[in-house]
Amino acid sequence: MKCYLLCRRVYVVIPSLIIIWSISVSANSKDPLPSWNESPSKHAIINFVERVTRAGSPDFVAPEERVATFDNDGTLWSEQPMYFQLFFVIDRVKTLAPKNPAWKTQQPFKAVLENDMQALAASGNKGLLEIVMATHAGMTTAEFEQIVRNWLATARHPRFKRPFTDLVYQPMLELLTYLRANGFKTFIASGGGIEFMRPWTERVYGIPPEQVVGSSIKTKFEIRNNQPVLVRLPEINFIDDKAGKPVGIHQYIGRRPIAAFGNSDGDLQMLQWTAAGKGLRFLLIVHHTDSEREWAYDRQSHVGRLDKAFDEAKAKGWTVVDMMKDWKVIYPFQLK
Amino acid sequence: MKCYLLCRRVYVVIPSLIIIWSISVSANSKDPLPSWNESPSKHAIINFVERVTRAGSPDFVAPEERVATFDNDGTLWSEQPMYFQLFFVIDRVKTLAPKNPAWKTQQPFKAVLENDMQALAASGNKGLLEIVMATHAGMTTAEFEQIVRNWLATARHPRFKRPFTDLVYQPMLELLTYLRANGFKTFIASGGGIEFMRPWTERVYGIPPEQVVGSSIKTKFEIRNNQPVLVRLPEINFIDDKAGKPVGIHQYIGRRPIAAFGNSDGDLQMLQWTAAGKGLRFLLIVHHTDSEREWAYDRQSHVGRLDKAFDEAKAKGWTVVDMMKDWKVIYPFQLK
Repeated sequence: MKCYLLCRRVYVVIPSLIIIWSISVSANSKDPLPSWNESPSKHAIINFVERVTRAGSPDFVAPEERVATFDNDGTLWSEQPMYFQLFFVIDRVKTLAPKNPAWKTQQPFKAVLENDMQALAASGNKGLLEIVMATHAGMTTAEFEQIVRNWLATARHPRFKRPFTDLVYQPMLELLTYLRANGFKTFIASGGGIEFMRPWTERVYGIPPEQVVGSSIKTKFEIRNNQPVLVRLPEINFIDDKAGKPVGIHQYIGRRPIAAFGNSDGDLQMLQWTAAGKGLRFLLIVHHTDSEREWAYDRQSHVGRLDKAFDEAKAKGWTVVDMMKDWKVIYPFQLK
Repeated sequence: MKCYLLCRRVYVVIPSLIIIWSISVSANSKDPLPSWNESPSKHAIINFVERVTRAGSPDFVAPEERVATFDNDGTLWSEQPMYFQLFFVIDRVKTLAPKNPAWKTQQPFKAVLENDMQALAASGNKGLLEIVMATHAGMTTAEFEQIVRNWLATARHPRFKRPFTDLVYQPMLELLTYLRANGFKTFIASGGGIEFMRPWTERVYGIPPEQVVGSSIKTKFEIRNNQPVLVRLPEINFIDDKAGKPVGIHQYIGRRPIAAFGNSDGDLQMLQWTAAGKGLRFLLIVHHTDSEREWAYDRQSHVGRLDKAFDEAKAKGWTVVDMMKDWKVIYPFQLK
C-alpha cells in the first residue's frame, strides 16, 4: 500500500518534471529544425551534429573537415512528374523550334514539339542527350546563365502553378542552415547540370556556385570581338550520377564528406563513399511517402527510383526520412 | 624677407608633421605586407583591396564575389631548375624501378634512371605523359595522397637543400593572408596536378583542398574488399593550363575572379578572363628578376616562359612585380 502510494506519487511527479523541463528547454533554446516533427530522424540529425561539434567529444571533427553533400533532385527540391531540368529542356526546344524547321519531322524533337512524352521516352538516353546538346550548347556560358535566369523567372510547375524554385523542401532548408551554423560547409552533388543550378543555388539554398558539383558539358576559351568568352560545346564533360558522384566529390571538393543526403539509387555510391570514412558519419535518405502534399514513390519509380539504396539504408541503419510523418510542412510557401 | 622666414618655417614644420604622422600610422596600423618594399606594386595591391572593400565605394564588391585565383609554380613557390612535381615524378620512377625491370632499357624511363635529362627532354610531352601515367596512376586516391605526403617529408631541393614546401614566397603568403582578411576567397589555378597539391596547400598557403584547381587524371569508383575506393586511371581528365585555366576556373569555381596572379604565358588566358569582367579588376605578374636570391628568367626560359603575357601586362597596365626590387625577402626561412 505504501509502495502503491509512493509509486503513484512518482508517476505524477515525473511527468510534471518532464513538462516543466520541456517548457524550459523550448524557452531557452530555439528549435533549429522547427518544420521537423519530433521523430527519430530529427533526433539522429541533432545527435550527430552535437557529437561532431562538441569540443572534447571523442567524435569531434575539426570545422574544416565538416563537409556535407546534398543531392538536389528529390532531396532539396521536388523531381516529379519529371526532373525539373527536363521542363527547361522542353521549353528550350519549343523556343528554338522556329529557327530549326527540320525539328518538326525529326525525332526526338518532333516528340517534344507535339508534347508526345511517350515518343520522347522511346528515344531513350540517346534522344535525351541529343536534345540536351541542342539546347545547352552553342552559346557562351554568360548567355546560358541568362537563359536559365529568364526561364526560372517565367516557368511554372504544372501542378503547383509556381516557380520551380518555390518547390524546395522547407525542412531541408532548415537543415542546411543548421549545419552551416555549426561550421559545416554545405555542397550540392547532383546529377543535374552544374550550370543549370549555379545561377540560383546561392539565393535559394545559401549554397554558393563554388560549392555546387554537377554534370557538365565541355567549354572552350575563345577571343570573340576582342572579348574572352567560354563557349559551351556539344560534348559531355562529366556525368555526376551513381558511381560518378564520389568521383565528382573527390574532383571538386578533394575531401570525403562526413555527412551525405540523398533520395535515390543515384545517390548510393555517394552514401557508401561517405560512410566508409573514419570517424562518425551521417547518412540520410529522403523517402517520398506523401502522395497528398508531394508525391509517393520508391522502388518502382522511373524518376528517383529508391531500391538498392533503400535496402542498404535499412541494413546499415542509415536515417530514412518519412516525408509524410517526419515533416510538418513540405514547401516554404505552405508555412503559416 | 618675411616670406622667406615664413617659408622656412613651413619647410621645417611640414617634414616634422610628416614624420609625426608616419610614426603614428605605423603605431596604429600594422603593415599587411611587411615583406614588400614600398613600391608601385605594393601600393597597387593595397589600393585595389581598399577600393573593392570600402562600403559605399563605387568599386565595392560584395564579399561572396571576392574571388582571387593564383597560379602556383613560379607564382606561389619556385619552379626552377624544373617544376617541382617533376622531381617527384623522377623520384617515383626510381622508387618503382625494381618492380619494373624493363624500364632499364625503355625510354623515357631509361633516361630518368640514368639521370639523362637531355634524353628525357628529347622524349617530349609524349614521354613525360608516359612517365606521369606510370607514376601517378594505378593506386587509390588515398594511397596517392600518402605517397605525396611521404615524398614531401623527405625530398630536398638540390640548390637550397630544403623541403620543396619551404620554397614558397613569403611576400605572396602575406598577400594571401591580406586578401583573406579582407573577405576574399583565395583559390589556386595551377597547371600542376590537383592531387599533388591538395595534401599540403592548406598547411602551407591556408588554401583548403576545395579551393585548389589543377590538372587531373580520371578516377573510377570501385568496391574493393568491401571498401569503396577511387582508383586513379592512366588517362588525362583535364589540363589546367593556358586556355584551360579559364575553363577550369569556370568549372570548379563558377564565378569569374576579380583578381588573378600569375607569372608566365601559361597564365595569360586566366588574366584575360579575369580582366574582362565588369568592375574593378586586379591583375598581377611575378617577374623573376633575382638571380641571386632566386632565379632570373622570362622570355627565353623553357620553364615559366614570360613573353606574350609580359607584353600584354605592359600594354594593359597590369602590375608586374620585380622580385629583386619589390620583395625584401623571398622565402620564409630567410626572415630574421
